[in-house]
Formats: sequence, structure tokens, C-alpha cells
Amino acid sequence: LAGILDTKIGIIGGGQLGKMMAQDTKKMGFHLTVLDPEANCPAHSLCDRHVVADLYERRTYREMAETCDVLTYEFEHIDAEYLLTLENEGCRVYPTAKNLINIQDKLTQKRMLQEGGAPVPEFTPLDKKNDIFAAGEKWGYPVMLKTRRGGYDGKGNAAAERPEQVEEALNSLLPEGGNINEIFVEKWVQYDMEASVLACRGLDGAIAVYPLAKNLHEDSILRSTAAPAGVSPLIAENSRRIGEMVTEIFGGIGMFCIEMFVTKDGLLVNEVAPRPHNSGHYTIEACYTSQFENHVRAVTGLPLGSPHMKTAAAVMTNIISPPFFSGAYRVSGAEKALGLQGVTLHMYGKQTARPKRKMGHITVVGNDLNEVRKTAEEAASYITLVKD
Amino acid sequence: LAGILDTKIGIIGGGQLGKMMAQDTKKMGFHLTVLDPEANCPAHSLCDRHVVADLYERRTYREMAETCDVLTYEFEHIDAEYLLTLENEGCRVYPTAKNLINIQDKLTQKRMLQEGGAPVPEFTPLDKKNDIFAAGEKWGYPVMLKTRRGGYDGKGNAAAERPEQVEEALNSLLPEGGNINEIFVEKWVQYDMEASVLACRGLDGAIAVYPLAKNLHEDSILRSTAAPAGVSPLIAENSRRIGEMVTEIFGGIGMFCIEMFVTKDGLLVNEVAPRPHNSGHYTIEACYTSQFENHVRAVTGLPLGSPHMKTAAAVMTNIISPPFFSGAYRVSGAEKALGLQGVTLHMYGKQTARPKRKMGHITVVGNDLNEVRKTAEEAASYITLVKD
Repeated sequence: LAGILDTKIGIIGGGQLGKMMAQDTKKMGFHLTVLDPEANCPAHSLCDRHVVADLYERRTYREMAETCDVLTYEFEHIDAEYLLTLENEGCRVYPTAKNLINIQDKLTQKRMLQEGGAPVPEFTPLDKKNDIFAAGEKWGYPVMLKTRRGGYDGKGNAAAERPEQVEEALNSLLPEGGNINEIFVEKWVQYDMEASVLACRGLDGAIAVYPLAKNLHEDSILRSTAAPAGVSPLIAENSRRIGEMVTEIFGGIGMFCIEMFVTKDGLLVNEVAPRPHNSGHYTIEACYTSQFENHVRAVTGLPLGSPHMKTAAAVMTNIISPPFFSGAYRVSGAEKALGLQGVTLHMYGKQTARPKRKMGHITVVGNDLNEVRKTAEEAASYITLVKD
Repeated sequence: LAGILDTKIGIIGGGQLGKMMAQDTKKMGFHLTVLDPEANCPAHSLCDRHVVADLYERRTYREMAETCDVLTYEFEHIDAEYLLTLENEGCRVYPTAKNLINIQDKLTQKRMLQEGGAPVPEFTPLDKKNDIFAAGEKWGYPVMLKTRRGGYDGKGNAAAERPEQVEEALNSLLPEGGNINEIFVEKWVQYDMEASVLACRGLDGAIAVYPLAKNLHEDSILRSTAAPAGVSPLIAENSRRIGEMVTEIFGGIGMFCIEMFVTKDGLLVNEVAPRPHNSGHYTIEACYTSQFENHVRAVTGLPLGSPHMKTAAAVMTNIISPPFFSGAYRVSGAEKALGLQGVTLHMYGKQTARPKRKMGHITVVGNDLNEVRKTAEEAASYITLVKD
């Protein structure tokens, strides 16, 4: 008899993505439980119940499965195997544990993408070190070494620009005595632009694909996203098709972010995340339905909302703490940033800064992408973290 | 040294308005305390601290004044006198206690509006019953009797259509032995449309005025709001001027809602509320800066954001529980409502229904007001509360 709105939602992880999921969850009136080890995590004050426990504690997963109607997660490095056990016992997990297991292993992810017809850079698994040199001879250098599991924000990637650098790149990724199977190698991609699309699949099979957005990284950390990406209609349409294709390949329910390279030969899929993504934060202010709301709609079985933009242009800029900054902080400059046209400020409420930690973001929306971009740069320049 | 974002905010009242203020408060990372007597009030799961206490308990006001940097409120029937005491001791209260005192008394409010040059219907205070008949003879019938304090959603108003109805109207408002001074009388207004503007004044004196929106009431309860109101450019411009004028008259900081009548002779101010208002909910999805965000910006001293619409049209429809419905409930039809284009659903999470209680609302945004209105009507028709 219970209606969809009576679904009790559990989110594994209460960082900024969990917080922003929480905001839309509570907007629609759902009951929300969040699991996060930090008592003052960003989602702490935005949920009905905060379970303060380790993110990998199976006992806690079970308790959440027993008290929530559906589980989802804000990041992919969690205990997917145990989620699969719970799923097999009847717990709803979206995106499914099987999705997560396939995506967690970047080599499996890439194979599935390739087999499903999505364009990916050339890659090869490794049995022995010589396979790397063989790949380098075949494709030319540089080659990219990647760990199959656990990488994010550039961690887990190492380029070898010449054969002489292979050893060093490999050692930077593989712990002493580690198995080379845990690494794979990829052809270096010469790209014109990094971009991403968000694609969400509902329980009814409908798919909502957001516009291709352009990403700028600094030190492998996302610095800003601009939407629309300003690509040709053909590339935009291809990105939409790839978005649909990727959610079908994984058979996933919920939001998927597909990071891509725009090259002179077209689009190549770099990496898929089975969750809302930093590069989709602009959708909160710019789209009819944000990535977070559509994720919540999808995992609860509500129909998806329109992913189209209601403003012509949007730029999101991350607020990242400086490289050598740790501990308590204050934010200065918010009043200058918010004095500019079209600026929204999100501060995640993290208790302490750490080097290069994502602390918040600014979104600027407006009619003209160039103006919006300038405003976003100016606004971001005002926001600084100062030691408390 | 503390930055503006370190401001600790306290809200008196944790109903839907408190909840929606909380959402923007937490988005920007402020620390938030909410005072509400209900343990499961709508804002309960969206604040850092929920003080469960009576809304008129002075001890609690004092405790909040001591632990928060600024106090605000979600409705006006609170202990303004004691807020004034706290204000005089140095506590920041916005809109100020003096604003609140002036606005709480609808007769004082009206006098100030009139003296400040805002157009209001003719009105007169009462010393004796015969003053009502005198007014009726002067203006013609019907006349409108209003209580000076405590009215809302039509409560506190009574029309007398003929002299013979004056006694009954008066008795419906005035308790046995009550002082007729507590009632005033107003000329009946023949209007073409009920409408409202939201006007927000920042600490720096800047004023942001939202577009005039058209309100439809049923049984004196707001049923829906459409923006823009579809009036002539002259009336739209006049409503903007009145919005500015009214915030100046009260010298207020924060959001003010000015309810107006659109008559064949122009605009008349009906009533002012010193807070975000039901008729401004559409601003969450439709405007660059929502009424709630601008209220939070104002009371914390941040610059105001643009009140302009980012979609051409918006319609908000309240979800109101039926006249004879009380107790536990479930919501049905959300999946049908959210299947329509441009629909956002807000459910406040109230634990129980009461007759004609505001339980949630739907906002529809889009390019064409007629389409948006049709969608809003269809969406609202799907949502029903069923006994649990």
C-alpha cells in the first residue's frame, strides 16, 4: 500500500555528493539514512539518521539494508561484494552491486564498453612487464598505465613518455610485490577537450541524458565545468548516443557520469562513474531536473525529469583548498563572489581542510557562456580559505 | 575575524518556510538552529540543532540569542516584544523586532503604509460599534471587518454585506467581552486579480524585487501562484515600485511579501508579511535566486542575488489536505505528477494531516504560461493524500 514517497533511502557516504543527494531527497520528503564515518560529514545535518560507522563495515551495510528500502552510494570504492550478497537476499541497491563491481574494475569496465560498441582508447591487460613495451612499440609513446581499482582524481594513473620511464611509472602504481595483473595499459590520447555527459536510467527503462559539458582539470582534479561544451551538433548528438549506450551496457539504474575525450577523430570514453558527479553540479541551477534529483527519482522508481538546461549557459568552478593547507579554516570573499550576477555558492561544510580537498563550488548561470565564464573566474578568485 | 559564512543562524519556526530557508542555509554551509515545538517538524532533519520548545518561550528565545549570531523567523505570530528586548541587548534579529511589531498589528501596518505613500484600501479604526455603520454609509456595503492581530489564511476577516450582518460579523471576530479597538474596518475592494510581489532588502540597503505573481485562493487559502502575473507593463512597474516602497517604509532587512489587489484603478496593498511567503515558492525553480536564498543572504549580510526569472513561466500549486482529513497519511500519484514536463515536487514531511493543512507543493516551469498552467493543474490532480 505504501506509496513511492514512503521509500526509505539509504546513502553510503555523506560527503558533498551525499549531501546534495540528501537535499533533493528531503525536498521530496523521503526518509533518509546516511552512512559516513565522520560525525560532522557534509550530509550530517541533512538526513533523518546518520549512522556513524566505517564505510566498509558489513554489519552496518546489513543494518542499513534492513532499515532502508533502497540503498545507493556517493562513491564507488565501497564493498560491492557484500552489497551483492545483500542484493541477492532481496535488498534493492541502485546502481546495482553488479554494475558497481563491473565499473570498479576499470579493465572490466573498459572491456564491457568496448564489447558494447562504445568508443574507447586502445588498451591491453598485462601479464608481464614486457607487455607494456610491446604496447608502446605498437601504439607509440607515451603510454598510460592505470591501476584497475581504487583510482580517483588522477591517483592510479601514470604516464611513461619513453621506454626508459616504464619502470618508474609501474613502480609508482604497483606496491612492492604487487601483481602486474592489477595494472593495465592504455594508448595515449591526444585530445582537444575533456568533457562529460551524465546519463540517468529510470526503473522504467527511460534514459535522460544531459548535455555534453566541458571539463578543465588542474593537477588531475576537476577545476571547472562549462555547459554546453560548445562542440559541433554532430559531437553533441554522439555524446547523447554514447550516454544512452553506456547506461544500457551496464544495465544500470540511476545516474552515470561518462567522462570522455573529444579528439579530432571524435569521442572516446575515458571512464564511467556509477553516481552523480562533480562535473554535473551545474545541473542544480541550470537544468530542469538536477543530476541529484534524477538520481533520487531513478533509485526510488519515480519517472525521470527533463535533463535540459533552463539557462543558456552554466559554469561550475570548484573551491579547492590549497596544496599545503590543513586543518580548521574560514572562508573569505563570499560577499564579493555573491555580489556578481548569477552566482550560487555551495559550501559543503567540511570541518577541516586538507591539501587540494574539494570544499565547495560556485555555479554561475546566464545567457552568454563567455560572460558566465568570466563571472565564474572572477567569483572563484575572491573565495579563499584562511586558517582559523 | 570570522567571515560571513561563519554566521550562526537561528530560525524561529520549523514548518515548510523554515524548512525551505534551512535548505538554502545549509547549501551555503551556515550553522543552523531551528526552534519548533514538534520533534518531527519539516525542518527537523535539515538543521544542525533543533530546539524542541514552545514558540513563545522567552527562555528559549534567550538561549537562541546567546548561541546564534542572527535570528529570523518563518511566521509573524511570535513574541515580538521579547525579541525587541533581546535586540536592545545586542542580538541581531531580521526583519527587526520593531518591523515585526509594526506589521503584527494590521492597523499599525496599514497606517504606516498609508503614511509612507503606498496605495491601500480605505480603512478606519473603531472606538464603538456605530463607527462600522458610519463607514458602511460612507463607503457602501459590503464592508470588511478585520482583527488587528493573529489572522492568517482568511481567519480574522469577516465581511458584512448589509448593515444587518454587522453584528454577526463582529461577533465572529471579537470574543465575548473583547475590546472593539482590536477590530478595524476596511472598504470592500472589487478586484480583478489577487497578486503579490516579494521584495528583499539587504543589509547594504539594496532591494531586490521579484516579478508580480498572480494568486488564486480557495476558501481564503492560497491555491496557486502564476508568474509572471500577465499584467500591463505599467502595473508590473508599479508593483516593483510598491515593493521597494514597502521595504523602505518598514526599514526592514530580509524578505517581505506584499499581497495586493489589482483593481481597475490600479494596485492596492492588502497585507504585508515580513518573511518568505507561500506565493514565492515558485522562485526556487524559476528565479536566479530563490526567495529563501535571498532572505538568508539578507539576514547574514551577504549581497542579494538577482530576483529575475530564468524560465519564462512558472506555476506553483499547493498540496492541501482535504477538509475532513486528519492523522497519518500517504501520498499517492507522485509518479504520475512527476511524469509531466517541468514538474518539481516538494513534500514538507509533516507527520500528520489536518483539515486544509499545507502538506507540500508542486512547481511547474517552462516556456509558455498556458502550458505550464495546464501541466500544474494536471499534476496537482494526480496527487492525493490517502489515510495510512
